[in-house]
Amino acid sequence: MKKLITLDYTNMSDAAVGARNGVSISALKALSDAVRKHHRNLIAMQKTGRLGFADLPFDPQPVRAVQQSARRRKGKYENLVVLGIGGSALGVTALQTALNSPLYNLDARIRHGRPRLFVLDNVDPDALDQVLSFVDPRKTLFNVITKSGSTSETMGQYLLVRKLLQDTLKGRFAQNIVCTTDAAKGDLRKLVAQDGYESFVIPENVGGRFSVLTPVGLFPAEMVGIPADRLMAGAAHVARECSSASLLKNPAYIFAACQYLAATKKGKNVAVLMPYAASLRDVADWFRQLWAESLGKRVDTAGRVVHTGQTPVKALGVTDQHSQMQLYVEGPADKVVTFLHVERFRSKLSFPRGPRGYSSLNYLGGKKVADLMEAEFQGTRMALTRSQRPNMTFSIRSVTPEAVGGLFQLFELANAMSGELYGINAFDQPGVEAGKEAAYALMGRKGYDELCRSIESAMKAKALRV
Amino acid sequence: MKKLITLDYTNMSDAAVGARNGVSISALKALSDAVRKHHRNLIAMQKTGRLGFADLPFDPQPVRAVQQSARRRKGKYENLVVLGIGGSALGVTALQTALNSPLYNLDARIRHGRPRLFVLDNVDPDALDQVLSFVDPRKTLFNVITKSGSTSETMGQYLLVRKLLQDTLKGRFAQNIVCTTDAAKGDLRKLVAQDGYESFVIPENVGGRFSVLTPVGLFPAEMVGIPADRLMAGAAHVARECSSASLLKNPAYIFAACQYLAATKKGKNVAVLMPYAASLRDVADWFRQLWAESLGKRVDTAGRVVHTGQTPVKALGVTDQHSQMQLYVEGPADKVVTFLHVERFRSKLSFPRGPRGYSSLNYLGGKKVADLMEAEFQGTRMALTRSQRPNMTFSIRSVTPEAVGGLFQLFELANAMSGELYGINAFDQPGVEAGKEAAYALMGRKGYDELCRSIESAMKAKALRV
Repeated sequence: MKKLITLDYTNMSDAAVGARNGVSISALKALSDAVRKHHRNLIAMQKTGRLGFADLPFDPQPVRAVQQSARRRKGKYENLVVLGIGGSALGVTALQTALNSPLYNLDARIRHGRPRLFVLDNVDPDALDQVLSFVDPRKTLFNVITKSGSTSETMGQYLLVRKLLQDTLKGRFAQNIVCTTDAAKGDLRKLVAQDGYESFVIPENVGGRFSVLTPVGLFPAEMVGIPADRLMAGAAHVARECSSASLLKNPAYIFAACQYLAATKKGKNVAVLMPYAASLRDVADWFRQLWAESLGKRVDTAGRVVHTGQTPVKALGVTDQHSQMQLYVEGPADKVVTFLHVERFRSKLSFPRGPRGYSSLNYLGGKKVADLMEAEFQGTRMALTRSQRPNMTFSIRSVTPEAVGGLFQLFELANAMSGELYGINAFDQPGVEAGKEAAYALMGRKGYDELCRSIESAMKAKALRV
Repeated sequence: MKKLITLDYTNMSDAAVGARNGVSISALKALSDAVRKHHRNLIAMQKTGRLGFADLPFDPQPVRAVQQSARRRKGKYENLVVLGIGGSALGVTALQTALNSPLYNLDARIRHGRPRLFVLDNVDPDALDQVLSFVDPRKTLFNVITKSGSTSETMGQYLLVRKLLQDTLKGRFAQNIVCTTDAAKGDLRKLVAQDGYESFVIPENVGGRFSVLTPVGLFPAEMVGIPADRLMAGAAHVARECSSASLLKNPAYIFAACQYLAATKKGKNVAVLMPYAASLRDVADWFRQLWAESLGKRVDTAGRVVHTGQTPVKALGVTDQHSQMQLYVEGPADKVVTFLHVERFRSKLSFPRGPRGYSSLNYLGGKKVADLMEAEFQGTRMALTRSQRPNMTFSIRSVTPEAVGGLFQLFELANAMSGELYGINAFDQPGVEAGKEAAYALMGRKGYDELCRSIESAMKAKALRV
């Protein structure tokens, strides 16, 4: 396999976008020693089993497990409904958008007997009701995904689905549920034992937002015709491409270091990821969780208050040229824009020649649609650079399972290095607890009575309303 | 009609989130005189026809026009395909997501004979090819929407569609095209005359991002069963609710003033809009263009270099609690979060009781799904406030055409006031020209030869690649 992903970071440099906004090559090189040390840390973590995601591409067992199950279940379902939220939903959605047609759910001809895919990643009652009313439970497989085995949104959905299946399939209801959760811990694992569901394991050392290349992403992928082995081959390839301890030879580390320097030295607190391919839209959404939840931290590993983290923003070329580009070019210089560039599209569609005498039509006639896409990408990148806005470009040859698997692995590695650079723990998420507990209290969960009273009295305080 | 939208800005105040992050009521009051002056400016603009969007809800003619056409075309099409980008796409999509089921395209039973809706807002060749291959052109109505009548992406799509229709419908191809564009200017208006398409008018004084309540949004809305008159009634109602010159009595102006003070005095350069309703997801996406393109400006009206503009970010409750909330709560205090809160959902779905002895299930059994949604909203808002992150909440009773029309009008009014506060022109977008022209040059458009040569030589410069 040739190089799967290349990084062009020319336009991050002060030479390209000026000293005020750009990163100097000397500043980058000055990070080399630190990066080498951090790399050793990460390797040590990997060796002691504390960097689970890094090992995933080299373990063939989960791929075999999901492929066997998917083969056995082939042709049996009209629908696959994933119950999951956050890391249990974003990866699945990214895979589906990237590698299947946007018409997949709509058009049985392109599904070739595979099930439609619905990802229920919310507890919006209307949206839940609409999907659950649409599917015939007897012909639907439900994949319940939660690492902890107790996520309230997912467990609530599970209650709805369990009842729906019990009402229609009676004693055989467990056949239409597959659970993906921790090997031993949590309520969902206990329910697997009690009810006899098929199940897959999320390794204990792989956090939700790093779990797309576990059965969390791989099982639904196989069910909708995306080959898990090819995703993993791409991830393994990129893991090797990004294995150098030497900063300037490692695309994942350059990405991390450029973002880190831009954020901490140049005030770029916004990190835009802008694919120029509609199919990579939700890879940007997946990245958004990875970057925000890993790097948005109050304290560093020494306990000092730091409040780190760029705000990740997903944008889409060319669509957002007509929505966000005005701000990116003329607004505050507070962003790094990272393009995901696709060299080859599958479609060879060309613009036909239209009627004569129309200046907005004539230059398009006879050109490939892909050429317009490419020209707009180049034009936008140039306009950003000329207005001294730092930007980088990851290029892939085409949107294949290998490339998508590779992108996941690359961003996860970059993210781990970023955690090291900031000196924070990139693998926890303590900041979501307070909101969760307040919600428990308001739902009347046992043991939260006092919190509930304190919340209710706060809610009665004088409000500024109009 | 009762009050359609209320704003709670309690948690923007220094009393709620501390002096470092909050806006003091005295600072807000100190803006009152300026706001009063700006209000007079806006009224003067409106009276001289330079604030077109403000008049839209009070003109019944466009509603009648689109309703007549939609009635005449009822039952004739399997698909409605909108060709448009930016302001010609985001409003349509927001309306569809807000007011029709997510299963609308999939389920003929809920369409009641109305056409599926596809919005082609990109020139991604694969995505275009997939949709155009799926639809039967003879049973498809194409709505070409561009204010200027020359937007390259839309005109390129038009070429593809025109050919497709000519190949199948021959001399009658014009029947399946409806154009929405300027009354007199531009290539698309000329094509209307030449080919004899039905057409609608975008008023000259209404820019693309303010055009959702013109036939741009209203015609597709009527075609998919969303009543244009109810959208307009809501917009008119909110226009009246937000007509006071007095800052503290005007929700649109308070929103604008709070964002302005937070951005310019408290370093909040990120403006998150986070609906707690899946259906309002794309209203947040529509807002994203409005806010970015209007306020992201290099110079003020006096020509001084200012680089204004918050970065708008769309988030979704509860989904993004498992993706972005960690960053919002613990990361840098650089954001204002605005919630869109829905008091009543249509669905009365409740969680069934599950098996006993599972702490993650038991407290949910018997509760309404909507109650979990509400508890998570309250919990999240409280957690943000306790970590001193400023936030506001717009509440609507339920997601109706009136409320959605009202939200559009409210944000447009807020946006106009924001432009005044920043002292910039909120109605132009000069920053997108450079990218457009570079793309023209690379596509070989006449008159861009020199630019093309300069770009190509720049592209050959030494790159930093890995």
